[in-house]
Amino acid sequence: MKNPYILITNDDGIHAPGILTLSTSLKKAEYEFAIVAPSSEKSGAGVSTSINKPLHIHPFPWQDKIPAWSVNGTPADCVKMAISVILKKKPDLILSGINRGANSGRNIFYSGTVGGIIEGTLRQIPGIAFSIDDFYEPSYEKLEKYIHPIIQYFLNNPLPIGTLVNVTFPQSSLEIKGFRMVRHGQGYLTENPVQRIHPEGRHYYWLGGKWADVVEEEDTDIALLKQGYITVVPIQINELTDHKILQQHKDPFEETFKKIS
Amino acid sequence: MKNPYILITNDDGIHAPGILTLSTSLKKAEYEFAIVAPSSEKSGAGVSTSINKPLHIHPFPWQDKIPAWSVNGTPADCVKMAISVILKKKPDLILSGINRGANSGRNIFYSGTVGGIIEGTLRQIPGIAFSIDDFYEPSYEKLEKYIHPIIQYFLNNPLPIGTLVNVTFPQSSLEIKGFRMVRHGQGYLTENPVQRIHPEGRHYYWLGGKWADVVEEEDTDIALLKQGYITVVPIQINELTDHKILQQHKDPFEETFKKIS
Repeated sequence: MKNPYILITNDDGIHAPGILTLSTSLKKAEYEFAIVAPSSEKSGAGVSTSINKPLHIHPFPWQDKIPAWSVNGTPADCVKMAISVILKKKPDLILSGINRGANSGRNIFYSGTVGGIIEGTLRQIPGIAFSIDDFYEPSYEKLEKYIHPIIQYFLNNPLPIGTLVNVTFPQSSLEIKGFRMVRHGQGYLTENPVQRIHPEGRHYYWLGGKWADVVEEEDTDIALLKQGYITVVPIQINELTDHKILQQHKDPFEETFKKIS
Repeated sequence: MKNPYILITNDDGIHAPGILTLSTSLKKAEYEFAIVAPSSEKSGAGVSTSINKPLHIHPFPWQDKIPAWSVNGTPADCVKMAISVILKKKPDLILSGINRGANSGRNIFYSGTVGGIIEGTLRQIPGIAFSIDDFYEPSYEKLEKYIHPIIQYFLNNPLPIGTLVNVTFPQSSLEIKGFRMVRHGQGYLTENPVQRIHPEGRHYYWLGGKWADVVEEEDTDIALLKQGYITVVPIQINELTDHKILQQHKDPFEETFKKIS
């Protein structure tokens, strides 16, 4: 695609370092782009959207006069507001991230970073989510050189409508061995609740987080990240129906319905 | 399954009428169950989870002394807190709803009702989400007789781990023609932003909602709901990888990586 127009968002918030690395990569590669990102951190937002909350848009002073706005919503809200209200033309591609912490495995369900991309995919705009498998000492700058080639590849080889790309970089201390285009694993972050005492004397909880205890197969993003590979997972959101079950259970409620009615 | 223990949640909040209908159905069928639901409406929450917010649990005075608690979080938070903190034993089944408004088509991504069930499915607990394709005049009580047969069927015919059930009832004014176990459609609710003026003079927005303009095939939940059928869609969350794309794009970044490194 010639001269694509790109939208960047994230879920760590517009002040987070990961989104700056995406912006710098695009600037160096001379892409035309704009930024619309949450005014505060929205980790764990998934594809959630704000129905009962008024949304405020604020221009954000980004470097090099790149157009940027913050929205007090989720990444999906940012994509909605960008396309419906803020941007003058529809983006050809949406990027999200780079998220602090891996969106690998089935974390795609919880990830706000992926959520922003799902929002674009539902409305037929291609998208790439980026995250790093490093929650405590992520080094974003050294990832910069990988961003442009990934974008370029998917602009030149567009995926079908309904399929997005989920890229995860390995832990910063690992030597990067290469790219692997693979399937996602089954792991995900589950809660690890911590009980605290409110000044009024009753208990409250922080959900916390820990990886669920899941055995991973070798050809999955989670397994290959540990070996130092950048993982690239094509995710489709057109069809989640379990068709095996449809074949096995033909009209199971026909008799029941006759009895009830 | 003999004497299953059931957890009920929803996204319209613990005060909503839809959850009362689920509870009444279970009570009449003499199931053992507990309720853990959001203290306020969480429509559009998807599978989002509260990482940066303290969660408070309050016992809720439900009728017939049925154990019930409210949590100031999302449906996924409620399921997490129920299982990790509140309940003394793990539920065998989770029910969610009945949601005001259809969770048909690709609304499964936005629906907090389905989100609560996805949370259970990730942790290998079977679940059924219920919603009604009627936002303005939903009549929940006449749905009561259909709840128990659906639960009973899936307790007697358990689905594989990773597959959940999404049940949608047609608009209340339609005559119910029967059940259809089918695939989900492609439609979804998109935004319909309304601009308002803040007392300080600047603009803000309500996202609003409207159905995206999608043509549906006849064998989908969205199409069959309009004809008056109760739709039952098996949804799998183990594998969202687009395997066709994996086959078509073999190691596409190998040359690129050599150049960059």
